[in-house]
Amino acid sequence: MIYFDHNASHPLSTVAKEAWLNAVERFIGNPSSPHRIGARAEAALTNARERLAAMVGCDPGEIVWTSGATEGSNTVLQHASHFAEGETWVSAIEHPAVITAAQRYLPNSVRFIPVSRSGVVDLDWISERLQTQRPRLISIMAANNETGVLQPWREALALSRERGVPLFCDAAQWIGKLPSAGLGKCDYMIGCAHKFGGPLGVGFIKCSSKLRPLLVGGPQEDGQRAGTENVAGVLAMVEALEEREMALAQDATAQRLEWRTEFETRIVGKLPDIQILGTSSDRLWNTVSVLMPEVLESRQRWVVKLDKLGFAVSTGSACASGKEETSHVLAGMGFASDEASRVLRFSSGWETSREDWLRLSEGVSQAFGEVSAR
Amino acid sequence: MIYFDHNASHPLSTVAKEAWLNAVERFIGNPSSPHRIGARAEAALTNARERLAAMVGCDPGEIVWTSGATEGSNTVLQHASHFAEGETWVSAIEHPAVITAAQRYLPNSVRFIPVSRSGVVDLDWISERLQTQRPRLISIMAANNETGVLQPWREALALSRERGVPLFCDAAQWIGKLPSAGLGKCDYMIGCAHKFGGPLGVGFIKCSSKLRPLLVGGPQEDGQRAGTENVAGVLAMVEALEEREMALAQDATAQRLEWRTEFETRIVGKLPDIQILGTSSDRLWNTVSVLMPEVLESRQRWVVKLDKLGFAVSTGSACASGKEETSHVLAGMGFASDEASRVLRFSSGWETSREDWLRLSEGVSQAFGEVSAR
Repeated sequence: MIYFDHNASHPLSTVAKEAWLNAVERFIGNPSSPHRIGARAEAALTNARERLAAMVGCDPGEIVWTSGATEGSNTVLQHASHFAEGETWVSAIEHPAVITAAQRYLPNSVRFIPVSRSGVVDLDWISERLQTQRPRLISIMAANNETGVLQPWREALALSRERGVPLFCDAAQWIGKLPSAGLGKCDYMIGCAHKFGGPLGVGFIKCSSKLRPLLVGGPQEDGQRAGTENVAGVLAMVEALEEREMALAQDATAQRLEWRTEFETRIVGKLPDIQILGTSSDRLWNTVSVLMPEVLESRQRWVVKLDKLGFAVSTGSACASGKEETSHVLAGMGFASDEASRVLRFSSGWETSREDWLRLSEGVSQAFGEVSAR
Repeated sequence: MIYFDHNASHPLSTVAKEAWLNAVERFIGNPSSPHRIGARAEAALTNARERLAAMVGCDPGEIVWTSGATEGSNTVLQHASHFAEGETWVSAIEHPAVITAAQRYLPNSVRFIPVSRSGVVDLDWISERLQTQRPRLISIMAANNETGVLQPWREALALSRERGVPLFCDAAQWIGKLPSAGLGKCDYMIGCAHKFGGPLGVGFIKCSSKLRPLLVGGPQEDGQRAGTENVAGVLAMVEALEEREMALAQDATAQRLEWRTEFETRIVGKLPDIQILGTSSDRLWNTVSVLMPEVLESRQRWVVKLDKLGFAVSTGSACASGKEETSHVLAGMGFASDEASRVLRFSSGWETSREDWLRLSEGVSQAFGEVSAR
C-alpha cells in the first residue's frame, strides 16, 4: 500500500519514536508529584514548552498541552463563551471540531465568513464588517485540511488586532508542513502532533489570556487543563516538530512541491474533465484535491478502486468521513453536491517520494481506464 | 531513587511499551479513514474494545476511549446534567476530578456522602436516603487514591439498581491492582492507563447509555467523543491491563500484601505515635497512608527529607499537591488540619520488591532519627 492520506494522520517519525521511548524511561513520575522524580518530569514539560514557544513565537507560559486539536478547539470556544459578548465569525471552511464547538458553546452567535471558489477566506468581508461591528472572536484556520489552501491568517490577525478582536487560528494542518513562526502571535492557536509525525493523542493550545478550563479537577497547566500531562507524548511532539522546522528552514518543500505539481500535470493530461481545486491559491505542498470525472457515481467508489490498486487515498476529512453528506468545505467554495461527491484528496507525507507520486498518477489513470472500459 | 508513588503514576510496563511500538508501526492510519490502512486501525480499536469489555464485564459498544480519567469524569458529569433532575450524591472522598466536575456541571445539586473514620463510604446513609429520595446519580470510587481504602461499590450498585438510580464508579485506582471483573456492571465507570503501567494520556469510560459528548466535532466513538483515537495508546493500555489481570488471577498480590504489612509492622515498631490510616478497612495491597509524628511541621518537609535519602514518596494526591490545603479525603475521615498536614502516602508498584519496602522502613526510621536528634 502506498499511503496518500497524511492529512488524516502522518506516521510517527523516527525522532518522535525515540523521544517517546527515551521519555518513558527517564520521566516515570507524575509531573505534579512533590519529589525529584516528579520534578524531573515537570522540568521536561517546561523544557518542551520553551522549545515549542520558541518555534511558534510566543511566551512559554502561553502554551497549554491537550489531547489533540479537537480538545483544543472545544476548550477555546467554551472559553470564548465566557469572556465576551457578540457574534463569533467562523470561516465557512473550518474543521468540524471548530464549527461544532462554536455552535455548542456560542449558539445563535455564529456567523460564517464566506470563502472564494478557490477556497480562500474572504478578507474583504471581514474588513468591511469590522468597520461597524466588533465580534467576540474571529476563527480562521491556517491551512484547509481538505483542499490544502492556505488562509490569510496573518492579514486577518492584523485586521482583528486593529479592532481589538481576538483571533483563533486552527493551525493543525499548517504546523509541521510550513514554518510555524508567527502563529504564536494569534490570540488563540491550536495544533496536534499526529499531523506532522508526532504521536496520536497529544496537542496544544497557545492562549494569550488565562484559559477557563474545559477539563476541571486538578491544578495542572496553571489551572487551565486538569489531568496528568502526557509527558512522553509532549516530548515526542516537540521533537517531531523541531525536525520539521529544521527541514523547512532548509527549504525541503521545494522539491516535494515539484513532485506534486508533476503529478497534477500528469493526471490532468491523462484524465479528461478533471479539475484540481484551489489551483489559483497558494496551497500546502502535500495536498491535492481533485474533482474526478463522472464515470463513477461517488468518491467512495474511487477510494475502493484505488485501494484495490494499492493506494490509500481519502474522500476528504477523516473526521467527516463515514458521513455521506456534502463536504461543507466544498459547499462553501460553491461546488454543487454532485460535484462535491466526486472530490478525492491525495495528501503526501515527509517520506513520500517522487516515485510514489508517479505511481499514484499511474494508479489514477489505471482506475479511470478500467471504469471507463466497462 | 526508590519510587513509592505509583498511585500518582506507574512506570510503563514492558508489554505496554512493546504493544505501543508495534502499534505505531502497524496502524499508521486514522481509524476514521475510508481505506484499508484506516480500516486496520479501526479493527485494532474494535479488538481492544472487546478485550477491555471482556475484562470489566460489559458490552464492547459501551466502551468509549478518552485521554484519561479527568476527561472521563468531566464527560460523565456533564452527561448527567442532561439526562435527569435531582440531587447528585458524591462520596466525600472522591477524586478532585469528580468533585470539581460535579460542582461545575451540577451546581447546587451536589450532596456529599459521608465516610467513616476508617475511610469507607457510609452505605447506611445511602440506603436510608434511597427510601425516600431518588437522586440523579450516585458517585462512588472503587478504591481511594490517598488511603487505598476499598469502597463498597458492589453494595452501592445493588442499592442504586433497586431504586433505578445510575451509579458512577471512578475505578482509576482499582483497575490493574484488583480484578476488574464486575466493574462493567456500573452504569458509568472510568479508568486510566498510567495507573497500572499503560501510557499517560489514555483512558476509557464504560457507559450504559449513549453519552452526550464533552468533545464535539467528529463522529468518532459513535458520536460520544470527537477527536482521532489514540490507537497505540489504547492498545498499550489494554495490553498492560491484560498482564495485570493475569497476575491477579494467579493471586500475585498475596505476597505483595505481606511485604507491605511487614513494612507497616516495622515502622509502627520504630516510630512512636504514628498511625496508619484505614487499618480497620480493606485496602489496596500497594498503599500505606501514615500519620507521621509531630517532629516535623509538615508533610512537605517529610517528603523532602525522604527524597534526600533516596525515596520518592507523596503527600497524597498528585492532582491536589502543590496546594497546601487540607486533604478533603482526610477531612472527610474526620482528621483535623494539623493531623492531615502530617500524612504521607507510600504506594508501591508491580515491580516493587520486598527489599524496596525494607529499605523504605529503614529510610523512614533514619529520617525520624535525624529530625528527632536536632
